[in-house]
Amino acid sequence: MHVILPDGKQLELQQGATALDAAKAIGPRLAQDALAATANGELVDLMTPLPDGANITLITKKNPADAAPLFRHSLGHVMSMAVGEFYKAKGYPADAIKRGVGPYIENGWYQDFDLPEPLREEDLPEIEKIMRDIIGRGLEFTRTEVPREEALKKVAHDPYKVELINDLPENEPLTFYQQGDYVDLCRGPHFPNTGKLPTSFKLMSTSGAYWRGNEKNPILQRVYGVAFATQKELDEYLHLLEEAKRRDHRKLGRELELFTIDPMVGKGLPLWLPNGTILREELTNFMKQQQFQRGYHPVVTPNIGNLELYKTSGHYQNYSDSNFSPITVDDEEYMLKPMNCPHHMRIYASKPRSYRDLPVRLAEFGTVYRYEQSGELNGLTRVRGFTQDDAHIFARPDQIKQEFLGVLDLTVLVLKTFGMDDVRFRIGVREPGNEKYVGEDSYWEMAERQIIEAVEEVGLPYTIEPGDAAFYGPKLDFVVKDVLGREWQLGTIQVDPNLPERFDLTYVGEDGAPHRPIVIHRAPFGSLERFTGILIEHYAGNFPLWLAPRQVMIIPIADRHNDYAWELREELHRAGLRAEVDDSSNRMQAKVRSAEISRIPVMLIVGDKEQEAREVATRERTPEGHKERKGVKFDDLKAELVERYRSRS
Amino acid sequence: MHVILPDGKQLELQQGATALDAAKAIGPRLAQDALAATANGELVDLMTPLPDGANITLITKKNPADAAPLFRHSLGHVMSMAVGEFYKAKGYPADAIKRGVGPYIENGWYQDFDLPEPLREEDLPEIEKIMRDIIGRGLEFTRTEVPREEALKKVAHDPYKVELINDLPENEPLTFYQQGDYVDLCRGPHFPNTGKLPTSFKLMSTSGAYWRGNEKNPILQRVYGVAFATQKELDEYLHLLEEAKRRDHRKLGRELELFTIDPMVGKGLPLWLPNGTILREELTNFMKQQQFQRGYHPVVTPNIGNLELYKTSGHYQNYSDSNFSPITVDDEEYMLKPMNCPHHMRIYASKPRSYRDLPVRLAEFGTVYRYEQSGELNGLTRVRGFTQDDAHIFARPDQIKQEFLGVLDLTVLVLKTFGMDDVRFRIGVREPGNEKYVGEDSYWEMAERQIIEAVEEVGLPYTIEPGDAAFYGPKLDFVVKDVLGREWQLGTIQVDPNLPERFDLTYVGEDGAPHRPIVIHRAPFGSLERFTGILIEHYAGNFPLWLAPRQVMIIPIADRHNDYAWELREELHRAGLRAEVDDSSNRMQAKVRSAEISRIPVMLIVGDKEQEAREVATRERTPEGHKERKGVKFDDLKAELVERYRSRS
Repeated sequence: MHVILPDGKQLELQQGATALDAAKAIGPRLAQDALAATANGELVDLMTPLPDGANITLITKKNPADAAPLFRHSLGHVMSMAVGEFYKAKGYPADAIKRGVGPYIENGWYQDFDLPEPLREEDLPEIEKIMRDIIGRGLEFTRTEVPREEALKKVAHDPYKVELINDLPENEPLTFYQQGDYVDLCRGPHFPNTGKLPTSFKLMSTSGAYWRGNEKNPILQRVYGVAFATQKELDEYLHLLEEAKRRDHRKLGRELELFTIDPMVGKGLPLWLPNGTILREELTNFMKQQQFQRGYHPVVTPNIGNLELYKTSGHYQNYSDSNFSPITVDDEEYMLKPMNCPHHMRIYASKPRSYRDLPVRLAEFGTVYRYEQSGELNGLTRVRGFTQDDAHIFARPDQIKQEFLGVLDLTVLVLKTFGMDDVRFRIGVREPGNEKYVGEDSYWEMAERQIIEAVEEVGLPYTIEPGDAAFYGPKLDFVVKDVLGREWQLGTIQVDPNLPERFDLTYVGEDGAPHRPIVIHRAPFGSLERFTGILIEHYAGNFPLWLAPRQVMIIPIADRHNDYAWELREELHRAGLRAEVDDSSNRMQAKVRSAEISRIPVMLIVGDKEQEAREVATRERTPEGHKERKGVKFDDLKAELVERYRSRS
Repeated sequence: MHVILPDGKQLELQQGATALDAAKAIGPRLAQDALAATANGELVDLMTPLPDGANITLITKKNPADAAPLFRHSLGHVMSMAVGEFYKAKGYPADAIKRGVGPYIENGWYQDFDLPEPLREEDLPEIEKIMRDIIGRGLEFTRTEVPREEALKKVAHDPYKVELINDLPENEPLTFYQQGDYVDLCRGPHFPNTGKLPTSFKLMSTSGAYWRGNEKNPILQRVYGVAFATQKELDEYLHLLEEAKRRDHRKLGRELELFTIDPMVGKGLPLWLPNGTILREELTNFMKQQQFQRGYHPVVTPNIGNLELYKTSGHYQNYSDSNFSPITVDDEEYMLKPMNCPHHMRIYASKPRSYRDLPVRLAEFGTVYRYEQSGELNGLTRVRGFTQDDAHIFARPDQIKQEFLGVLDLTVLVLKTFGMDDVRFRIGVREPGNEKYVGEDSYWEMAERQIIEAVEEVGLPYTIEPGDAAFYGPKLDFVVKDVLGREWQLGTIQVDPNLPERFDLTYVGEDGAPHRPIVIHRAPFGSLERFTGILIEHYAGNFPLWLAPRQVMIIPIADRHNDYAWELREELHRAGLRAEVDDSSNRMQAKVRSAEISRIPVMLIVGDKEQEAREVATRERTPEGHKERKGVKFDDLKAELVERYRSRS
């Protein structure tokens, strides 16, 4: 047999040769450094026979991250072995421990156990210690392929493994991997030796999991671990995890009283509490102001519509999974609206339009309802009812580029306003030769060209994704990366000749004849719910002044300063600022701490000196910590705050 | 027999005496002047025997309006006679005309006919002429009571009358009234003589009406008339009718493109067009600003809720007629929300509350859905989906008065802002002794007293309506009279201890123990739909600057002024004003007329002189007509308009 090396050279090997054999054939140093290999692009270990003629690459300790799935899987076996030794030390016989599956997953692995007594979270460090010991022992991983009957004998003490084997097809090869005295039924692949495994791993948690995911089966204990090629990567990962937890919008939403979800009202139907509603209204006002300046016209349409409307639009037939059940009214059927588009189509159709009237930009903060399975629901980011910052631009075909430019400009402004700098556009175009795309070639070429030209003009990074278009027209998604490096798909801009067709929309052209407009769908926030959820995590609750539901806390140092504090509060409130007074009996430092916990960006501290001179001392949150100023004239401060609020700076 | 006169005197009369006999007994002059009478408070005519011992009052030509139902009824007979003569002149025999019912109604009467050929609207003046002629003939109305058999003979030619008689109970006395040769089965009462009838009447219209309102029966032709005691009253009535037609919000809503109702979307579900949406948003912003200043907290809740929520609140059981059918989601049932209250109760319950936190004022522009029969629907004023400017104030019992004062203050401000000066309050209290009212006497006394004290303090007219309270607490309605003298019930303020009970809401009192808050429901506009409908009619579409969807029209005199016009438009637009340019090829006067028809309050006319000096000529709508100014510096005008907009003056 032979294999082909990355440089194209053929390497002749004996039948049944492994990647280790290939490495040895090249040189002893490589054989020592090798950790794993790829064969025809797939990760393989050094112990598994290579297919004849495979293109192979060896992975060495120079780039261990390339073999991450393997060392994660092997660390899973090491953990499994360590758990065995842990229970052995407690006096349990080896066969008291039974094992379910143990795959590698993103960033780590898990292993299911049926244990004689549950493993506690506080046992995990001890398990980690035993794991490090096993790694230190430098145990070789060996792979053996055995006949089914022998395999069944080897696992006879473990009913889960017996069940797994019995469920495999007759001719499936059965392999075992062994390190030291630990042996497990496993397809691999694995590292060559425990000694080569990274020690930059961590056991994270344990949880219950039904055997084979079926709730009629016994619950096993699942232990999770994560591992990276270097300690630095592990630390970064753990930090991000900690950060994500700290920023979790469900946790902050509760702590800052932004929203709540109440089963008595309904799953996936957030109740926006006062603080959240203020934030939501700030977002809405910001967008309304922009839309006014950009020539959008606001509309309001009902949350339900006659089924005929959705049959005409196609939503009824094409999205039946996400539609709520119909509501019968007299002899008609209605439905909660899943989208605002059909309503806007009817508004366009409510009067004659001329080519001179176009583009017509109809905007609505429209609340729509879509069914999601209850298991999919998640805080504000996955809900059953949400409000889109929706608009439909009815344009002539020759106006697509200009309108796209306008929408992109607004989108970029939105992202900039919220400090979301890391953004990229994905342009979804037709896949050549795919039959699913309807409409004339000339239309597609014209529409795709105008979008690409527009995005080029904006000058932001973009990719073109063939096959990502809707069946009726091209689209553009924008994806932002947050401070934790997580990507969020926000809005989509879509070019749609289909709905105007279905609703028979026209405008009178310069030639006096009826023409069909194009519709551009756009929603820069996407939905207020989802965008707010993302913003909460993005800012970790530390909203800028204009968005902060609670903007100013006035802290009187002693009771005798309360009246002065309330006087300032009234003045700020009259100026439209959201100001409060902490006139509780707490000490000043406790008041400051309390305002910090509530993420209130500006504190005004007032004592004798301030009161006398109509001044305040300020304490403000900054990205680095906080900034303090003393002896600030209150009137100046008020003007400053009003201006910062107004300008959303 | 005897009757009793208004001064308490008894008048002895012969058995079977009529009011005319009574008048004669008093004096011949009175007998001549008498038109009708009241017996025991009921209107009777001069021809009907009076009951023995009745308290009677005679109505004379000095105050004919007191007998309005009678002269309206008699004019109906005169019209019926005139229609007979009209068809006789056309050559039809008298029995070719058959007659359904002909009652008097508010302001007039109608009569149903089965005619040999339909009466056309343009025939009505001719009928009026014949009526005046009949009045001029001075025909006496005579009343005869006849046995059933004879009655059936008299109406044998008219199947409708035969049916009416056959449907009457056996012992019902049958009476006929006759003037000249016209005789009709009728219970009366009537005027004594056609010569005494007012000529201040008018035939209004004809329409089709099923015999006895049943659509399986033949359609008869119904002719309507109105009549008043004096020509002045008739003219006023016709003027108001004309005004109401001119101000009809459905007509103006269409002409000014404020809203549309589209059967494809759904009955009773208005689509707010851009102009209407702007108006709606101005109303909303006004109320939000007030609510912010008055310490309300905004919330947003979904448009649906789990049925359990409405079972807990009682809305499901108690308002089943107006509930939409449930929506099934997995194994739960949901419903379009008919009210926002249950959602707000759950928000209150979402965290512990202390006596120091109260009052908690939760406000939402909440869109609710209530079923109405399709025949009841009417433009914006009677719909199936509407948005309330709703709020719930959770208060301690001792805070009711103070909160009521706050709500009344806001209500009065709202009405004043819209120039609705003619307002009265109706306080609905318990009816003594009625068992339907739940709750302690002490609670009722305390709540009623606090409301009355609050209303007294505000100093506006009020009435106390015993029995008008809700079963669980007192309430206050406010009613405004519009420029046409029509009364509109706007919001209700309601004191409710019931929902807090049903939702088991509490606050921790000063004593550390849980107490039950009271809820005050309030919505000063009532609903945005209904209030907008009323406003459109109130202003006849001539909205003040701040509410006008289209505020400023810039009119260039010639094409060479277009650029200057657009420059001004951009500046006004940037300042937040809704400004447009009419750069059509029309002449200046046509542009002015067009802006007037569109009810645009401010026109800026720009020509050479203005352009050169950066000035404008203005033309503004005033209550009297319009006001013009020349040579106004544009920057001054802009500042003036911005200030007028901001201050809502």
